[in-house]
Amino acid sequence: MSRLVAELRSVLGPEGCLSRPEELFAYECDGLTLHTARPSAVAFPRGRDEVQAVVRACRAHGVPFVARGAGTGLSGGAIALEGGVVIECSRMNRILALDPADRFAVVEPGVVNQELSRVALPYGLFYAPDPSSQLVCTIGGNVAENSGGPHTLKYGATTNHVLGLELVLPDASVVALGGPTGFAAGYDLVGAVVGGEGTLGVVTSATLRLSPLPEQVETLLAIFPDVVSACRTVSGIIERGLVPAALEIVDQRTIRAVEASVYAAGLPTDAGAVLLVELDGPAIALPPQVARIRELAAAAGALRVEVARDAAERQRFWRARKGAFGAMGRLAPDLYVHDAVVPRSRLPEVIERVCAIGDRHGLVLSNVFHAGDGNLHRTSPSTAATPASSSA
Amino acid sequence: MSRLVAELRSVLGPEGCLSRPEELFAYECDGLTLHTARPSAVAFPRGRDEVQAVVRACRAHGVPFVARGAGTGLSGGAIALEGGVVIECSRMNRILALDPADRFAVVEPGVVNQELSRVALPYGLFYAPDPSSQLVCTIGGNVAENSGGPHTLKYGATTNHVLGLELVLPDASVVALGGPTGFAAGYDLVGAVVGGEGTLGVVTSATLRLSPLPEQVETLLAIFPDVVSACRTVSGIIERGLVPAALEIVDQRTIRAVEASVYAAGLPTDAGAVLLVELDGPAIALPPQVARIRELAAAAGALRVEVARDAAERQRFWRARKGAFGAMGRLAPDLYVHDAVVPRSRLPEVIERVCAIGDRHGLVLSNVFHAGDGNLHRTSPSTAATPASSSA
Repeated sequence: MSRLVAELRSVLGPEGCLSRPEELFAYECDGLTLHTARPSAVAFPRGRDEVQAVVRACRAHGVPFVARGAGTGLSGGAIALEGGVVIECSRMNRILALDPADRFAVVEPGVVNQELSRVALPYGLFYAPDPSSQLVCTIGGNVAENSGGPHTLKYGATTNHVLGLELVLPDASVVALGGPTGFAAGYDLVGAVVGGEGTLGVVTSATLRLSPLPEQVETLLAIFPDVVSACRTVSGIIERGLVPAALEIVDQRTIRAVEASVYAAGLPTDAGAVLLVELDGPAIALPPQVARIRELAAAAGALRVEVARDAAERQRFWRARKGAFGAMGRLAPDLYVHDAVVPRSRLPEVIERVCAIGDRHGLVLSNVFHAGDGNLHRTSPSTAATPASSSA
Repeated sequence: MSRLVAELRSVLGPEGCLSRPEELFAYECDGLTLHTARPSAVAFPRGRDEVQAVVRACRAHGVPFVARGAGTGLSGGAIALEGGVVIECSRMNRILALDPADRFAVVEPGVVNQELSRVALPYGLFYAPDPSSQLVCTIGGNVAENSGGPHTLKYGATTNHVLGLELVLPDASVVALGGPTGFAAGYDLVGAVVGGEGTLGVVTSATLRLSPLPEQVETLLAIFPDVVSACRTVSGIIERGLVPAALEIVDQRTIRAVEASVYAAGLPTDAGAVLLVELDGPAIALPPQVARIRELAAAAGALRVEVARDAAERQRFWRARKGAFGAMGRLAPDLYVHDAVVPRSRLPEVIERVCAIGDRHGLVLSNVFHAGDGNLHRTSPSTAATPASSSA
C-alpha cells in the first residue's frame, strides 16, 4: 500500500494524496453515517489524465477505488470498501464551456451544483436539478446518485439534464457518451451511468442542459392541522393538472426540530404539517394559479395560507425545508434516514400506515417529502431498529 | 425454413405467420425505401408468451429476427437482414393500464401513438411525443427509434416519456426495466433500449408518462422571403427564453410540393419559407407571447404572420408540415431522405452551406425541419448521389 501511495504522490503531487489515519477519518462515510469503512488513501486528481493515472495505479496494485464528490449522498455511494482508494474530485472544479445559444455547459465533476446556476444567471439560464445540499454537493456526485430535489416535480432529476459524459472506465480507458445536442450515434448509455453510484467509471466531465429562468416565482406556505390534509391538497393540485415547480410537505416533528435550530423560520410549532408550494412561469399566469391553490388548501382544511412577499420571505419558507436534515440532528445522536419513493396517489395511505407502525414499535418518526413526485424522506433514530437496507 | 414456418404457425395460428413471396413484399423495408431485404417470414405474436415462443423458435433454427412496428421509420431499423424473420407487433395493441392519478399508461407495443392520446383525453392527459406519422406509427416502433416530433422542443423525445419497459431478450428470457414511478433499483437501462432499434430485445410492454393537456394552444404561421430569415427568427425566439411547444420550418420547394398535393393548405407558393410556431400553456400567458413572436418575425423580415383562429385553421397550418413527406413523393420517383441533427445555433449556416453544395452538384433539395431542436429533414432525389449512410 505504501508503494501505491508513493506512486499516487508522484503523479498528484505531495498534497494530492492523503494516507494518515487522522486524515482518512473524514472519508469513512458519506451522508449515510450508519455504514463506515476507512479508505487506504484519498487521491485528489486535477484532471482526466490524473484520474487515468490513479485508476491505472490502483489496478496495478489490485486495490479497489471509488469516486467521491462532496460526501452529502444518503446511499453510501462514496464509501471505499475493502481498504479501497477514494478518488476525491474537488480539484476538478472548472466550468469548461458555457453555451447560452445552445443552452448547455460542460463542467468537471467537482463543480458545486449551485455554482453552475450562479455562473449561468447572467445569461438568463439555470441548472434545474437542485438537491437540498446544492450549496456544497457537486455535479459528479449528482451524476453518480441521479440526485433529485424539490424542483424534480416540474424539471425532472439529474438524468433529465445530463446530455453527455466523459468517464474513465475501470480499465483506465476513456469513453465519451452522448453530446451537447442530446442526440448521438449508438446506444444511449448516459442514463445507465447516471445513478450508477460510480460503479461504471469515474466521470471526468459532464455536458449539462441549462434551462431558461422562469419569468416569475411565487412561493406559498399552507399550514395544516395534520399531514393527511396536506397530502389531500397535493392530490387535488395534481388532479387539476397544475404543475407547480415544487410541492414539499414538512410534518410537525420536523417543524419543531427546525424551530428549535438555527434554521428557525417562524413556523407554528402546533401545526400538524406545512405544505410548501412553488409556482413558476410567465408572470401573468401565476395569480390565477395562486388563487386556485389557496382554494384547494382551504377546502382540504388548511388553517391559513401565506404567500411570500419577497425573496427574503421566500428564503424563510424554504429554510424550514432545506434545513430539515441539519435540524433533525438535534432529535437524536444517531439518525436513520430513509429515502423512499412511493406512487404519488398512495402518499396519504403510506404516511398513515407508517405512522401506525411507528406508534406500535415506539419509534420516533418525522417526515419531510417531495410530495409532488412521491419521494419520502423519513427519519428515525437509528437505535430503534436495524435497517435492512440503506434506501428503499 | 419451412419447418420454422410450421412451428411458428403452430404457436401463432394459421393467420399468425406470412411466408409467401407476395405476402413478404410489403415487409422488405420501412420508410427508408432505399435499402430492402426480403424476410423469410413475418410472425404476428399476440402477447409476450408468443414473442418468447417466436424468439425461441428462431434461435433453435439459427434464423435472425427483428421487431417491426408500423414500418414508418426512416433509419431502416425494421429491415430483416440475411433472410431473417420479422416480428410484427400489430396484434399486441392493448392498453393494459391507464392511471390518471399517477399519470402513466402501460401499453403493448402495437398501440398506435395517437390512439394513446385519444384514450387519455377524457382524463385531461396526453402522450407528448408526436412523430409526424403518429396517426399510424406504434409505441413499439417509437421506443425502438426514440422518435421525436414537432413537440420534442418543449416536451422531449420518446426517451423522456418511457418510465419502464418489459422486453424479450435474444435468449427468449424476459426482463423488466424501470417502472411507473420513474425510480427503480439498479442501473437505469431503459434509455439504452430506447433508440436501440430493437437490437437489444423485443419490447412487449411499455410504461409511459402521460402529461397534463395545456390549457390553451396558439398556432402561428409566419411567411418569409427566404429560409435564412426564418432561421433568424428561431434564434431570436430561443435567445429570449421563449419555449414554444413547436418551431417548424418548411422551405419553398416543400411548400410547392405540398400545395400541388392532397395536403394543400393554401400556403403562398412564392414564399421562401414558412415558420410554424405553436405555443401552449395557461390561457392568460399566451397573448403576450404571441405578440412577442409577431415582433421577432417582423424584425427578421417576415412578409406576414397569421394566427390560427380555430382548430380547423390550426390543422390547416399543420397539414403543410405533417403532409410534407407524402407530398414530396411527387417530386421524384425515388427520394433520398436525410434526418440530421445539428446544433440549433448553427442552423442558418448549415442551411446555406448545404444549399450551396446542392447547387454545385445540381441536386434538387428541399428542407423541412424541427428548427427549435436542430433536427433537419432534408430530402433529395436518390438518383443524384450515392448516399454514404441512411441518416446522419
